[in-house]
Parts: sequence; structure tokens; C-alpha cells
Amino acid sequence: MANIERLQKNIEDLKAISEPCNGGVTRIGFTPEYRAGVEYIKKEMHEAGLQVYEDDIGNLYGRLQGSNSQLPSIISGSHLDSVRNAGAFDGIAGVVAALEVARMLQEKGIQLQHTYEVAAFIEEEGTQFGRVLLGSRFISGELCDEDRDRISNDSGETLRDRWRAYAGDRPVVPARRLPGSIKAFIELHDEQGPLLENTQTDIGIVDSIVAIGQMAVSVQGVAGHAGTVPMLMRQDAGAAGNLLATRLTQYVIEHYPETATLTIGKFHLEPGSANTIPGACRFTVDIRSGSAAVVDDITGYAERESRAVAKQYSVCIDAGQTSFKPAVAMNGRLKDIIKAACEELNLTYRPMNSGAGHDAMSMADICHSAMLFVPCVKGITHNPAECVPWEFMAKGTDVLYKAIQKIDRL
Amino acid sequence: MANIERLQKNIEDLKAISEPCNGGVTRIGFTPEYRAGVEYIKKEMHEAGLQVYEDDIGNLYGRLQGSNSQLPSIISGSHLDSVRNAGAFDGIAGVVAALEVARMLQEKGIQLQHTYEVAAFIEEEGTQFGRVLLGSRFISGELCDEDRDRISNDSGETLRDRWRAYAGDRPVVPARRLPGSIKAFIELHDEQGPLLENTQTDIGIVDSIVAIGQMAVSVQGVAGHAGTVPMLMRQDAGAAGNLLATRLTQYVIEHYPETATLTIGKFHLEPGSANTIPGACRFTVDIRSGSAAVVDDITGYAERESRAVAKQYSVCIDAGQTSFKPAVAMNGRLKDIIKAACEELNLTYRPMNSGAGHDAMSMADICHSAMLFVPCVKGITHNPAECVPWEFMAKGTDVLYKAIQKIDRL
Repeated sequence: MANIERLQKNIEDLKAISEPCNGGVTRIGFTPEYRAGVEYIKKEMHEAGLQVYEDDIGNLYGRLQGSNSQLPSIISGSHLDSVRNAGAFDGIAGVVAALEVARMLQEKGIQLQHTYEVAAFIEEEGTQFGRVLLGSRFISGELCDEDRDRISNDSGETLRDRWRAYAGDRPVVPARRLPGSIKAFIELHDEQGPLLENTQTDIGIVDSIVAIGQMAVSVQGVAGHAGTVPMLMRQDAGAAGNLLATRLTQYVIEHYPETATLTIGKFHLEPGSANTIPGACRFTVDIRSGSAAVVDDITGYAERESRAVAKQYSVCIDAGQTSFKPAVAMNGRLKDIIKAACEELNLTYRPMNSGAGHDAMSMADICHSAMLFVPCVKGITHNPAECVPWEFMAKGTDVLYKAIQKIDRL
Repeated sequence: MANIERLQKNIEDLKAISEPCNGGVTRIGFTPEYRAGVEYIKKEMHEAGLQVYEDDIGNLYGRLQGSNSQLPSIISGSHLDSVRNAGAFDGIAGVVAALEVARMLQEKGIQLQHTYEVAAFIEEEGTQFGRVLLGSRFISGELCDEDRDRISNDSGETLRDRWRAYAGDRPVVPARRLPGSIKAFIELHDEQGPLLENTQTDIGIVDSIVAIGQMAVSVQGVAGHAGTVPMLMRQDAGAAGNLLATRLTQYVIEHYPETATLTIGKFHLEPGSANTIPGACRFTVDIRSGSAAVVDDITGYAERESRAVAKQYSVCIDAGQTSFKPAVAMNGRLKDIIKAACEELNLTYRPMNSGAGHDAMSMADICHSAMLFVPCVKGITHNPAECVPWEFMAKGTDVLYKAIQKIDRL
């Protein structure tokens, strides 16, 4: 069984490796604090008997050599960077759990056939360069050498220059991993949502990392005096926006209560004065589902309903999709293995989608990939209050430990 | 009949007396431009044979002596100040029409029994000191001498100091007018709304200046990740706010389509990020009706519906009235006189409420008061495009001319 004290010590030690911030963790890629986090993990890896190396974008690996050096690697891990004033678990939980699995294997004297690699990816959150999954996208080849000059941070510094200052003269290997060199990637992460806690479930087995469609809605009406324009003569952009937003939310609650989400996070009126009828309204719509067809259906409904509301309120509405990211399905065989591991351990589990992006999306481009979620209290994340109870950290690590051995025997 | 050329010349001359601005008029109380506007009107008053005087807050009067000096005055007029980059008619139309009536009386050699006074009020818009109806509130006594020290502008200058710099050593009379010294006040104004134009009506006869209730609604939910919190586990403050806003608008459209207005002019989400479920939502509600009972009913509905929506979306909603101004009814006998004048002139007319505040509200505190509206194109106001067709300026002035003679005979 996983050693709770070790898990807890690693996570609490890493929590302290942070820029000064308001009670949480701030460890952004390519900073001195990030380097300190990497050095901490390297020391732990060395103590666990792993061979440690860094790649040329800043990802860190610890290898446990397999008995058959012809076989591809099994990799587990997650990201070591954080957003500003984050909690202690997002990403780090998956790195620490993968490391604990290596220690458990060593303690039991188990040598896998496949080489087992513990990975700590850099800049998953994209806080330094505004590009999420940065480290793992260099592994999959989605980002390549030229991107080091194209990508720059808010200070105008390119990734290439920042990397040089960060890495210095350390020996590194190329980040890019070829398909065929990895047998499987499996990532433990905290759920970052309330579903497991609310349903009293130990483990979430991810079906898909969801498709994300984003829309921008712009309503054009006619501004006017709040007192002098009768209700039936108005072209109130705000009233139209409120109604359309309400219909979109209600459509998803009615038709896809468990299989999609719709979020209106920005809503802006112009001129924005209490005694002026809004002449314009703009809002964002974020639509997510494991099924691209569902995102399409909701997007189509939004477009049709825009026309109906525009007619009802005598306004013009422009509602268009501004971006779309397809869903990434997790590997069926790996999901079955995680399920079997849960059953052997008498843990409750459920299939679910991940509404957030993860490094497993990049890894799925080059190898069979899977994710397991552990519950986090009240679903709170990106917040110092983020908390995975230690008992669940241990349960998740145990599942990972069993799953990796099962994958080794595949 | 009113002389269209004179009306047009006065309004166009005054339009040019402005701070530099983007195509409109900016003539704010207590500025050199305001002084220039007053001097222009004074010159016109002198030419029309009126006795001119200013009061000690900056209101301007031109008197046409009545045959019986024991009788109280009949006053007509409106305000000479403007908002920034305003149109040429708001307020000014009523001053110019009242002045034209004086010229018409003089040309016809008509001496009224009552003294007729043309009034040009200062700072109705409240742009200089943030207090609407400032000039006429000093007339009614709602504001008094001490308020000159209490009221200050954005530069921290008190009304007393500003007044001294503005008025210099001019001879002035006290602003305060006693009840009994005024027989009637009658104000012509442009409608500032689309009702007369849309119903092809020449003249609006104001029943009431509406009651205004303002509410602040605050919704407290729980912020969360747009992808990881299932729809049925959310406490989405924005979704609740949109639904409540929609219900309030629809309630007024259904129950009071012609007798009340409801405007949601500000609507704010927090944290206001496209991929975060809003944790808080705040919006304003402006409710107006000629009947305070209707404002009460809508306010009561808003409070009840807040509780229903709070329950539906598992959020807390605080919806309270932040201010209430009672309706001000116009005098029934004066309304009948305006109606009779319209009929004699074969003009179409309709009763209506004023959704905006006017100097007639202050004047109603001390004398019988009435208002007549002339149509303005598309209801556009507080905008350089504000336009009352000259033909309607003349029709309104003719009604005023007839009405004042009828009041004189009462």
C-alpha cells in the first residue's frame, strides 16, 4: 500500500516551494521557484533509485529500468507548475503519486519488463507563456523547435531565451518522444470538480477530455432613456442578452444535465448606466462535452435561438463560434485496467469526463493514454483551499500501482 | 401663429453657444458658455420688450407686466443648461417657445391680466454639481441657503463659491418664490421618447411625472471551473441573475406594457472570466410608473421572484430598493386647458406620463403645474442627433400661446 506519510511530506514540501503569495502555491514554469521544485523532485527520485534526466524544454523524468530494454516505456506523471496562488494538489498530486509507485515497486523488489518513467511536465498551466500544456506539447511534437522563437511571455522574452537562462549548461535530452517509444501514459489528477465527493466515489476513470466550443455573442440594440421609451418600443440589447443567456443555460440543463456544461462567464452591457436602456450587450459562451456532436447541437441551438430572440426584441444578434477543440478519448483497454485495479482494491469508481485540459491530451497523440481522478473537497481548485484528503491520495496511488503492473503484463 | 423662423434662429443660435464638443451642445450651468447663453436670451427678452432679471442661483426671467399687478404670475419656461454633447432641444425648446409666446402677445397687442414670466432655469441636468433640477429646487425652497455650502462639484468647489465667480456683482433677486405668488407654471419640452412620433400625435399632455424606484440586486453563488462542475451541482450566480432579469422584464411587458418601464442598465459578473462559473452577479433595476402602486407591485414581484430564483439555482439573492421618488401629478385643470387649446388648433394630442424628471416637478411643489410634450425624431435625446421638426416646435408654441391666455382668464 502507498505510504501516506511520504505522499503528504512530498506534497507539503512542494507547497512551500513557491513565490511569496497569499497562502497558496505560485510555481510558474522557468522561474527560480520552478527550478527549486525540480531539484526537490530530482533528489526524491535519486533516493528512490531512479535515473534522472531533463529534456530540452524542461520536463523532468525519473527512469526505473525494465528487464527487457527492447520494450517501450510506461510513463506516469503530471505537471509540476501551478497557476498563481494555487492549491497544493493540481498537477503535483500526479507527480508525487507516480513517484510513490516507483518507491513501492523498489520496496517490493518488483522489476517490470517495461521501463517505468515518472514524469513532471513543465508549464501545463501556461502561466509563463500563455500556452497551456507547453511541456507535453513539445513531447508530442505539436510544438517544435521554431516555436521557441514564436512564443514569448508578457515581458517579450522568447521561450528560447527564457529556456537558456533557466536551464544553463545542464545536460538534456530532446523533448520529442516518438510514437512506439511509449507503451502507455497514465495520469493521476485531482478531479477539480465536486462529482466524486458528491457521489461518494473513490476514483473517477476518465472517458474523454471534453470537446470545448467557445462562442462570442454580440447583441446590438438601441440605447435610450430608461424613463421615456415605452417597453414595447424598446430595442433593449440587455433584455435580449439576458433572455438568450437564460435559454441557453436551460437548454443544457434540460437536455444534457450530466453530459455537457455551458458557462456564461463574461456579460457586458453598454453604456452600462443604471438609467439608460442598454444599446449593446456582449457575452461569452463556453460549451463542453465528451461528445463533439453535443457541442455542435448546443451551438446550433444557440444560433437558432439567437435569431428568435433577435426577432422578439427587435435587435441584431451575432452569435458565432470563436474556437473549437475536439474531445480526446482515453484508451479503452487502459480504462478497463484502471477499473479492474479499483475492483481488486474494493474501491468505488465511476466513468466521467474531464472538463479541464490535461497533459494526457498531448500524450494521447503519441501513445495509449488514460487518466484517473481522485476526489477534491467541494471541487475547489486554483485556490489555496484545494484539498485531496490523504486517504484518497493513497487510494489513487494504490490504483496507479496496480494499474501499472497490469499494463506491464499486457 | 408662432413664427417658425424666429424659433429656428433662437434654437440654432443657442446650439452654437457651447464648449467645443463632438457635434452637439455642451452648456453646463455656471460656466462661461452658460453665461453666454443667458446673455443671448436676455438680449432676445429685451428686444421682445420684457423686463429681465436674474435670481440669486442663476435662473433667468423675462417679465411681461399684467394689467392687474395684484395677481400672481403665470410662468412658462424650461432649462437652458445641457448635458455634455447634447442635442439642441432638451430644455432650450421650452425656453424659446415661452419667449416666442411673449413676442406673439406683444405683436398682437394683448395684455394679460396676470404678469407673464418667461423662465430659463439653471442646472436642471445637474452636470456641474450632480444635483438635478438645481435651479428650480431653489425656487421651490427644496434647496436653501445652507445647501450652497453643502453642494460641491468634482473639483471640490462649493456652489456658493462657484456662484460668486459666475454671477459677479450683477443685481439679483432671491430665487425662492412663495406659494401664492405664482398662478400656474407650464413647461413645453420635447418628449425624449418615441411615443408621439410612433402614434403620429402632435402633442403629449403629461398626466404625471413618474414615480421612480431603483433596486440593487446582488447574487452570491460559488465560482468554479467551467469544465469540471456538472450543471446540476452549480451555484451559478450569473445564470440566476440572467433568469431573474429576464423574469422582471417579462413581468412588466406582460402586466404593464404601457404604464410602467423596467430597465436593467448595469449587469456585472465576477470574476468575469470566460472559463469560470460566475461566483457573484450584481445588477441594477430602474422601475418607473405614473402610479406608485405599480412601482410597488413590480418591486414586490422582484423580491418574491428573487427568492424563487435563489432556490432554483442554490444561490443567495439580495434584492432591495435603494431609492424611491414619488410620482408628481400635473394639475387637472391645466391639463384640460392644454387639451382645449389642442382642439381649437385641430391638433392631435394624447395623455402620457413623463418618464424623465423635469423642472415642473419642483414647480408643482409651489403652484399648479403642467407640461406639454412635442415629438422628437425616433425619441433620440442627450445626443447631437436630437431633433424636433420645426413644424412641431411651432405647433407646441401655438398650444402654449392659447393655453396661457386661457389660464389668464381662469
